[in-house]
Amino acid sequence: MAGFAEATAVTRVGEGRYSVLLDEAFGFAEALNGGYLMAVVGRAAVDASPHEHPVSTATSFLRVAKPGPAEVHVEQRKTGRTAATSRVSLVQGGEPVVDALVVTGTLDAAGEPDWTGEAPAPALPPIDACCTFDSGKADRGFADQVDMRFDPSTMGWLDGQPSGRPEIRAWFRFREAHEPDAYALALAVDALPPVALNMGARGWSPTVELTWHMRAVPAPGWLAIHGGGRLVTGGWFDEEVEVWDSAGRLVAQSRQIARMGRPARR
Amino acid sequence: MAGFAEATAVTRVGEGRYSVLLDEAFGFAEALNGGYLMAVVGRAAVDASPHEHPVSTATSFLRVAKPGPAEVHVEQRKTGRTAATSRVSLVQGGEPVVDALVVTGTLDAAGEPDWTGEAPAPALPPIDACCTFDSGKADRGFADQVDMRFDPSTMGWLDGQPSGRPEIRAWFRFREAHEPDAYALALAVDALPPVALNMGARGWSPTVELTWHMRAVPAPGWLAIHGGGRLVTGGWFDEEVEVWDSAGRLVAQSRQIARMGRPARR
Repeated sequence: MAGFAEATAVTRVGEGRYSVLLDEAFGFAEALNGGYLMAVVGRAAVDASPHEHPVSTATSFLRVAKPGPAEVHVEQRKTGRTAATSRVSLVQGGEPVVDALVVTGTLDAAGEPDWTGEAPAPALPPIDACCTFDSGKADRGFADQVDMRFDPSTMGWLDGQPSGRPEIRAWFRFREAHEPDAYALALAVDALPPVALNMGARGWSPTVELTWHMRAVPAPGWLAIHGGGRLVTGGWFDEEVEVWDSAGRLVAQSRQIARMGRPARR
Repeated sequence: MAGFAEATAVTRVGEGRYSVLLDEAFGFAEALNGGYLMAVVGRAAVDASPHEHPVSTATSFLRVAKPGPAEVHVEQRKTGRTAATSRVSLVQGGEPVVDALVVTGTLDAAGEPDWTGEAPAPALPPIDACCTFDSGKADRGFADQVDMRFDPSTMGWLDGQPSGRPEIRAWFRFREAHEPDAYALALAVDALPPVALNMGARGWSPTVELTWHMRAVPAPGWLAIHGGGRLVTGGWFDEEVEVWDSAGRLVAQSRQIARMGRPARR
């Protein structure tokens, strides 16, 4: 295991072309983590841009990415003084695995917000009142990389008692000494178990599309992740995530649309 | 003026290529309406897909679209039984104006939701307690096409008294006899004046990225549009919109990120 920075490193191999070695450490049984793939995509987009941060990342998940070599293709579409926009694809075995539209900009790490809405309610319980969650699978991968502490009131699905509300909340940090940055936020917005697990979903709920926005440069320390949803219908559900940093700032927002998970075939 | 259906009609001119005549009737002084452009993009994506509805549309606004001829290019990226994904670009004068990632699927018009979150609060006042808003400009275009009735408590910015909360709410329907459909929802999620007008923004606030999801087939009648936001910082603001139909269903969700408007140069 190489650490998050190394696992998401991209190497420029040509105009708008990057190579990457996808690390199984950021996988589950079913697939590499979508947030990990968005982090890789973001690193390539920022490398190809005059700006420093992935302000907006809209992502289509097309196919399951596998550990091993892949390429990232970055096509500049508009480069402006405040923002630059690119089309980015993660390609493996000659097929697109992830498509993204990435807007880069440069956020001021010392900037103070002009206005912030209310902090999400309910707040997360203190870290030592939260619970851990280990899938118990041999390929627990992701859980070896990140230390997540869950609000017990949102984890009833684990014991066959889903809350009936599409909500999951958790504290998040890396197990290694890697403080939050833009790419950690990409990971954080897709780090929760699907909120639909509290609505009776079972197994894997594949994300179809996820858009996330980086709103501020995160402070060191734990991130608080608040996941919710608005509608479950026709096999589709939405999941909204807000990530707040240790300084009490809203640092990332996301919405994804996903398919309700069904029990795995045996 | 051709009516919304005609103004958004696309003509297939080749494999994944469509021509369209962009209609000034859906414009403002500054630009054609972004929702109108998303409706055009959605029509082409659905035409090229085996599915009926634009379930997810992530959009980068690159350049100002002008009334007149344009092309839509649709590139299939994955076609599945439940969903198909394409990369779509609106091109004018040889340059991309709008890039989008579109996921199509087929929603069941008779389907009942399995679960819906609380209706947004506060509710919209009754239609006859709401106010109209006419920019008074000769090129009022958009306002001639849609009949919007605004919650007066969210329109203080009109009189130089912004509420200090990034919220605008309105009822929405076409002036012509055109009941809500998928493409009307594309228009509705970007139909409000920028919520940042209530935070001191002035003039045009260009949308950089907007992702919207169609969640249900809308019933005939008025649509209720609820716009809000979470953070204004560093010249960026987010705007979230929920659209509810006359049957009390959540039919569309969106988030956009935009730049704070500044007074127009004289």
